Amino acid sequence: MRELELIGRLREALGAGGAGHARVLRWIGDDAAVVRGFGCAVTSIDTVIDGVHFHADGLSGEEIGARAMGCALSDLAAMAARPGEAYVALALAPGTTLEYALALIAGARGLAEGCGATIAGGDVSSSPVLAVTVTVVGWARDPGELVSRDGARPGDLVAVTGTLGGAGAGLALLEGRAPAGAVRADTRLRLRERHARPTPRLAAGLALGELGASAMIDLSDGLATDARHLARASGATIEIDLEALPLDEGVAEVARALGDDPAAFAATAGEDFELCACVPAAARPVVEAGWEAALARAGAPPGAGPPLTWIGHVAEGGAGELVLRGAAGPLSGYEHAL
Amino acid sequence: MRELELIGRLREALGAGGAGHARVLRWIGDDAAVVRGFGCAVTSIDTVIDGVHFHADGLSGEEIGARAMGCALSDLAAMAARPGEAYVALALAPGTTLEYALALIAGARGLAEGCGATIAGGDVSSSPVLAVTVTVVGWARDPGELVSRDGARPGDLVAVTGTLGGAGAGLALLEGRAPAGAVRADTRLRLRERHARPTPRLAAGLALGELGASAMIDLSDGLATDARHLARASGATIEIDLEALPLDEGVAEVARALGDDPAAFAATAGEDFELCACVPAAARPVVEAGWEAALARAGAPPGAGPPLTWIGHVAEGGAGELVLRGAAGPLSGYEHAL
Repeated sequence: MRELELIGRLREALGAGGAGHARVLRWIGDDAAVVRGFGCAVTSIDTVIDGVHFHADGLSGEEIGARAMGCALSDLAAMAARPGEAYVALALAPGTTLEYALALIAGARGLAEGCGATIAGGDVSSSPVLAVTVTVVGWARDPGELVSRDGARPGDLVAVTGTLGGAGAGLALLEGRAPAGAVRADTRLRLRERHARPTPRLAAGLALGELGASAMIDLSDGLATDARHLARASGATIEIDLEALPLDEGVAEVARALGDDPAAFAATAGEDFELCACVPAAARPVVEAGWEAALARAGAPPGAGPPLTWIGHVAEGGAGELVLRGAAGPLSGYEHAL
Repeated sequence: MRELELIGRLREALGAGGAGHARVLRWIGDDAAVVRGFGCAVTSIDTVIDGVHFHADGLSGEEIGARAMGCALSDLAAMAARPGEAYVALALAPGTTLEYALALIAGARGLAEGCGATIAGGDVSSSPVLAVTVTVVGWARDPGELVSRDGARPGDLVAVTGTLGGAGAGLALLEGRAPAGAVRADTRLRLRERHARPTPRLAAGLALGELGASAMIDLSDGLATDARHLARASGATIEIDLEALPLDEGVAEVARALGDDPAAFAATAGEDFELCACVPAAARPVVEAGWEAALARAGAPPGAGPPLTWIGHVAEGGAGELVLRGAAGPLSGYEHAL
């Protein structure tokens, strides 16, 4: 298939999605997309590559597209930005079929639209290896609405959305490192979904921003690494109680099958794409009382928003340290080796 | 080298470039960059991959970075947008040294800054193959300032900036397909530069927009393909006189050494990143008289702007056809096979 033919089909596959979005003035088919500006633009770029960030033989094309989009949109959630547009560059390996390329796009589009984002542009090229790069743009009326990494202050409490360890457990099961029998079949499927189709916590990010979060990050590399980013950026010491971590169902069983401490596994396995936020201690009652309503205002369907769990605090003194209390052994940050 | 260490060094290498730019409120180091919005945003994403879009063994890291940035910014030139921010995702092959990664960034940064653009964010990952994805964002006060592909009308004249065939000739010499002796040593070096370090025609794009261009595209795949995009998008017939094409110095010699007709080579070799614009015939005197002044208003240093050459017109009748007159033989569009 020739590139131009594929681009034509890609355009068809994206259909009126872009043109239907009021802010998008010009869309795929010109040299660039044109979008009406507003307040401030919040932009992030992320590449995922077969064999590095995922394994194409364990996921469907649709899941790979959804996963790339979900990882990228998670960065907007972490800033408390409203999702706007996405730009998708597909690098397709030799022998890629039209059907597979369309599945990648369908996955990315489906996840984006479910989050209120529109794919407004893209690029397709041949490549020795499958890679998907997604640039996402969110918008805020005012930069003061956004939450950065560097605002954590002594006395703040630390919260995390949803549950941890599920994506890592799903990956361990998918790769056969953990035996399939470690968990029930329905749990196995759910954990696989957490790996294959991450849910960016966009409504939760907006809700945390509205309720006064002082600093926030999304958990891509795992709490042990990402909370350290918060601590370093803020010049503060963050103490986390590992026993307080909300483990996803089945994570304890998978971690033990791998010979790991469940909480340590949940803090290091990465890719849960939950949010870790710091909140002034005085705001805790307001956050707890207002959580469901703030989620609803941010667009989450009733009952669909994630729970919030208090897992630690920002301590006096120190500068940029992360302390994990209750660890079975020393925990080192999970970092991708280059 | 670990990813986090590399990201730290990358951040250092980018220095205060981002933070120093007034529009950029938050920059590399958070989950996303924050940029003050304005009028409308013009956005394009482009991936270049070793072995597909370039050959890393024939170019320096600095040139690869510059080339990726130049190709991306060229899309903003084609829209008549003012360059704003760039976001760079590096996928680095095994064994990449810090020095090489920094050279890639330096090349991208140098080219961006020379064009008035700022690298405001990025991503680094390991990869089986070197790839650079650049998302560029330009801004316009009003969408009416921009020039799209679909505005060509019968009676318009067709112009091209600068000279054609140079990048293709440079690549043929670099790859040894054309003998080094086909051109003088200084010409060979200049042609190599046209391949290695494309110059996005940002000032020329703004000037053409101001002077009333009805449609515009940048020449990435070659005039024979890109002018057809203009014709198709506009539903018009474009006729181009191949004998009128402004060939780069040395192109005729290289084309003949390859056994090609020089004009046909210049129309198909691609990657010159010049602009092809349609202009109402009545505006020709205004464009010719006002070209240098409009370039200067768009920020081009005196005498540095490219010349403009009239190469054809938009004919009555037909729908979406490109006619190349004076071709030595039939010309088919240059399309990347997937």
